[in-house]
Amino acid sequence: MVKQIQVVQNILQSNEEIAAQNRRLIDEAGIFALNMMSSPGSGKTTLIEVTARRLADRYRIAMVNGDITTTLDADRAQQAGAGQAVAINTGGNCHLEAHMVRDALNQLDLAAVDMLIVENVGNLICPHGFKLGVHKRVVVASTPEGADKPYKYPSMYTGADVLVINKMDLLPYLDFDLEHFTRGVEALNPGLVTFPLSCTTGEGVDAWIAWLEAEIAANRG
Amino acid sequence: MVKQIQVVQNILQSNEEIAAQNRRLIDEAGIFALNMMSSPGSGKTTLIEVTARRLADRYRIAMVNGDITTTLDADRAQQAGAGQAVAINTGGNCHLEAHMVRDALNQLDLAAVDMLIVENVGNLICPHGFKLGVHKRVVVASTPEGADKPYKYPSMYTGADVLVINKMDLLPYLDFDLEHFTRGVEALNPGLVTFPLSCTTGEGVDAWIAWLEAEIAANRG
Repeated sequence: MVKQIQVVQNILQSNEEIAAQNRRLIDEAGIFALNMMSSPGSGKTTLIEVTARRLADRYRIAMVNGDITTTLDADRAQQAGAGQAVAINTGGNCHLEAHMVRDALNQLDLAAVDMLIVENVGNLICPHGFKLGVHKRVVVASTPEGADKPYKYPSMYTGADVLVINKMDLLPYLDFDLEHFTRGVEALNPGLVTFPLSCTTGEGVDAWIAWLEAEIAANRG
Repeated sequence: MVKQIQVVQNILQSNEEIAAQNRRLIDEAGIFALNMMSSPGSGKTTLIEVTARRLADRYRIAMVNGDITTTLDADRAQQAGAGQAVAINTGGNCHLEAHMVRDALNQLDLAAVDMLIVENVGNLICPHGFKLGVHKRVVVASTPEGADKPYKYPSMYTGADVLVINKMDLLPYLDFDLEHFTRGVEALNPGLVTFPLSCTTGEGVDAWIAWLEAEIAANRG
């Protein structure tokens, strides 16, 4: 039993070190980097597509997409305007780790990137434990998931820098108590920057895009 | 590296053995047992509530609910008519393992149970790798998750004995290609027993309940 815990600790320690190396690479290249995390089916990939389409004429965007078995998300990202995209096939692994992102960074021309979006594996539990070396961790919730998610999956919300609440257009058809959801988030992560939006109708997307542009500008200093 | 793999293999082997012990306990008591798995927010807990309400007058139902930190699901199950309910707090673990279910079985009066529903942690990846000792593995998909899920999370679909497609009432408001979804499932698990339904409108629930009753009867022999 002690041996197992030891192994896990070594893995996590090593992950932290590689994440710090990733961060140095990213910072040296002047890149603003995001780690996008969510349940499967929150609309994370669609949000990334919308984001790339809105920003591709002004910023050079690179994507790193974690997928268990396919390259579907990386294909979609590139079609949406990401100049460079790398698919990480995790081989069944339920989250990205820093070494996977390091391997992806090695395949990118970092000098030609303004913003790097890392799309994690769809999973509301495991990804939060593994730092990747980015600047901001974005959690994408969606209204059909239900308002109890911050209460049931607290770690993801506690560790978030930004929260997107996607699929706001479905509210009239759902029993989603936005106030209950918001209270749960506020208890875990007071003052968390939050963008309610809909990728389908475009409602709320402007505020998200404006935040990204401000962050890219601030990162450039 | 070899050491890490060794540890994982030992854990999985031990899990199989405990799952087989669980199965013997369940079979000796004449119980029909399900393992319900899904993404967070598929409506798994609501489906279990609906199921318990429909069957509680004819069958004695016990629930085992895996939750990362709370007992919310077990509370809901008991309110819906489960005679006995045990909450397994996984302490951050992203899936149930057989030893957790064994501990839960030890807290139940198995002689007073006809059907046991094990609600796994909301996660479309990790739970599939851990047998628990039940008769049927039920995957609960939901239309807002998108039609690409069988393609992106194949293991869960490959290992399912039954598939529920929940939230069918939302189809008019979603861009969900049911044919694409079904083709993906069929490629992984041909002929998989599937129940499209809506817990909100009740559409399709009768067929699911009828299947459960037939399975309970068949299990009694």
